[in-house]
Amino acid sequence: MSTLKVALLGCGVVGSEVARVLTKDAAELANRIGAPLELVGIAVRDLDRHRGSGLPDDLFTTDARGLVSRGDLDIVIEVIGGIEPARDLILTALEHGASVVTANKALLAQEAEALYDAAAKADRDLAFEAAVAGAIPIVRPLRESLAGDAVERVLGIVNGTTNFILDAMTTTGESFESALAEAQRLGYAEADPTADVEGHDAAAKAAILAGLAFHTRVTLGDVHCEGISAVTSADVALAGEIDSVVKLLAICEKIDTPDGHAVSVRVHPAMIPNTHPLASVRGAYNAVFVESESAGQLMFYGPGAGGSPTASAVLGDVVSAARNRVRGVVGPGESTHADLEIVGVGRTRTSYHLAIDVDDRAGVLAAIAHVFADHGVSIKTVRQVGTDDEAQLVIVTHAAVDANLAATVAALRDLDVVHDVSSVIRVEGS
Amino acid sequence: MSTLKVALLGCGVVGSEVARVLTKDAAELANRIGAPLELVGIAVRDLDRHRGSGLPDDLFTTDARGLVSRGDLDIVIEVIGGIEPARDLILTALEHGASVVTANKALLAQEAEALYDAAAKADRDLAFEAAVAGAIPIVRPLRESLAGDAVERVLGIVNGTTNFILDAMTTTGESFESALAEAQRLGYAEADPTADVEGHDAAAKAAILAGLAFHTRVTLGDVHCEGISAVTSADVALAGEIDSVVKLLAICEKIDTPDGHAVSVRVHPAMIPNTHPLASVRGAYNAVFVESESAGQLMFYGPGAGGSPTASAVLGDVVSAARNRVRGVVGPGESTHADLEIVGVGRTRTSYHLAIDVDDRAGVLAAIAHVFADHGVSIKTVRQVGTDDEAQLVIVTHAAVDANLAATVAALRDLDVVHDVSSVIRVEGS
Repeated sequence: MSTLKVALLGCGVVGSEVARVLTKDAAELANRIGAPLELVGIAVRDLDRHRGSGLPDDLFTTDARGLVSRGDLDIVIEVIGGIEPARDLILTALEHGASVVTANKALLAQEAEALYDAAAKADRDLAFEAAVAGAIPIVRPLRESLAGDAVERVLGIVNGTTNFILDAMTTTGESFESALAEAQRLGYAEADPTADVEGHDAAAKAAILAGLAFHTRVTLGDVHCEGISAVTSADVALAGEIDSVVKLLAICEKIDTPDGHAVSVRVHPAMIPNTHPLASVRGAYNAVFVESESAGQLMFYGPGAGGSPTASAVLGDVVSAARNRVRGVVGPGESTHADLEIVGVGRTRTSYHLAIDVDDRAGVLAAIAHVFADHGVSIKTVRQVGTDDEAQLVIVTHAAVDANLAATVAALRDLDVVHDVSSVIRVEGS
Repeated sequence: MSTLKVALLGCGVVGSEVARVLTKDAAELANRIGAPLELVGIAVRDLDRHRGSGLPDDLFTTDARGLVSRGDLDIVIEVIGGIEPARDLILTALEHGASVVTANKALLAQEAEALYDAAAKADRDLAFEAAVAGAIPIVRPLRESLAGDAVERVLGIVNGTTNFILDAMTTTGESFESALAEAQRLGYAEADPTADVEGHDAAAKAAILAGLAFHTRVTLGDVHCEGISAVTSADVALAGEIDSVVKLLAICEKIDTPDGHAVSVRVHPAMIPNTHPLASVRGAYNAVFVESESAGQLMFYGPGAGGSPTASAVLGDVVSAARNRVRGVVGPGESTHADLEIVGVGRTRTSYHLAIDVDDRAGVLAAIAHVFADHGVSIKTVRQVGTDDEAQLVIVTHAAVDANLAATVAALRDLDVVHDVSSVIRVEGS
């Protein structure tokens, strides 16, 4: 069987591990594919940085465009990340007849349509298991294993940095700032942690998961996104009081509308009960919890990042794409036939956990209950926590339209008897 | 695109749900496949039992052989279970050009070679996601997602009945007998629970998982199997004292040998620490924990049985097989290229947790320690639990060759100072 030519774009933490395994396990991979793979080139920015890296120096080039335009490549692996030049290089690789394996969540969340179209036009595979939740097989199960089922909801812990920070806050009671500093010390958070802590990374993954789960095109702009930088140790303590933990969740759900179904996709901190399988996801681990009509509740758990885990997902896709090249076929492409409407968070039904600092005098609860009633929000539980000078009301609502809950919070802030609504976090998974 | 003809063998809990979804979601499935599916026949034992079942009476036939021999079938779904006639019907269906989707773990664990060979000869798919851990996608991830990785170990809770019983014993402290009776009352255990409680069901699944994980043919006879009928409430209490729980585990591992690697496959009760992800798998749920070289630790969690969950797995395979028929290709077949030696449990390294009832006098510990040393087993912890008339030593060993551990237990039983070795359970996952 003739050799399959593979090119690698990017040779950082993930790329170097992919190259290492392609070389070390060449014989085993050839057995699994039915043909040997040959790594013919690695595009990098700076040749000097990769000298003596253990890989043959002559594999490296700074001419990525020249590499993907060779015309004799079977598979191109893109692990550069970011929008450009990754986008241009992937499109060029497909135009020249190579299947593409990418870990680029940002690109897929913004440009999926262009990439899928180019892959379909070229009759080649576009595979991206590594783009969501690192090593955890979730893209393939959604695309294939659950293809005979109807997914109703996906709840994901898909960002290891924020899970590490929230887990540390939960375990030690420390502040967000100190947990973030620790995450940075340990290499779980970057010097500029914005993309992780503000939820942008999770939002990109949520868009990809929602598109696969609901057979509808979903892009980053469709995702409501709130990060964890405003989560306080008080919020975490309040969660503990109701046997819950605070997690940053990516939530993709199918909601009922007067004329059928719609899709809602959001990323925000939420309190989930300790009994929920996602509550026990510790440290920098990821997990994706899927609720479907027939299968019921499934969870996929594993490392969400890191060179080796991400390389495992990339190489799984490389083997599938290679098998397809050997057989002259392509795997499933984009599936958008359901084409459901995407609605904002305001139209979804959620429930809120609120801590309200109020005057400690008669009639306050009545005034506050009135505000909830006025907005059609029904209260599930009220807990009063007295302090010396003022009282705190801790309220959990029943599920209600999110816009009404937000309006309730705004109205509460206008009440004279309310000093502050000091904690507002949604409740999920109960 | 022309219609794909589907036949269903068996119409019990799973079969009837498969038929229901094939009918109800016909349009959605056609969208996902690219061609409509037509259910052309359902083979059952007794026509009368299915009259007025909501499915057209004329779909039903008692002539299963005639149905699979039609010659115009694209996909045959086998959910009868057992060896014959399932084996004959699957082979006949393949000979007549149909791809086969089966949930039959017993058959796959005994006859995989014959089935794979027939599928390869016919150039058709043989798919069996539903045969292991119900709705949990684990066959496809092992076959495809991890195809670029090296699996080192698979630890599975793959039998819901035994997990329900052990979970009940852990939660309530009740005996095996009373937990079993409750499981039978609730329909989690059959009137004759032998196949579940003695581990035979889990052993079949272990054989299938090991074959996929290690690219080696593994059959039921290769699996060391111990059930849970001998697990006592004392065993469960002892596990609690070391912050562990007793689970029935299916363990598939690659072990080092002087001349490379070998495979060991075993099913037995084991104590695992509460911090291990498998420890929190409650009730009748299943989970498969995979340790691989690059991906690290992954876990797949979900319902392990039931009509709807199993139907979800079956239908996922039906969609894949149908997509392949539309494109005129087949998915990956059997992979046995590694062809590793399979060794008995005696040659694997495990560690034991022992409770030994002994005379309460000086020198006893020395005599017992001597027995461990004689067998090259090193002791990790010893705990003495005094009672009025006699003492109990609770010992956890370091990892040692299982045969030496077993020999140690036998030798201990021969010691005069030892009244009984009242609890012997392996320790895993630490």
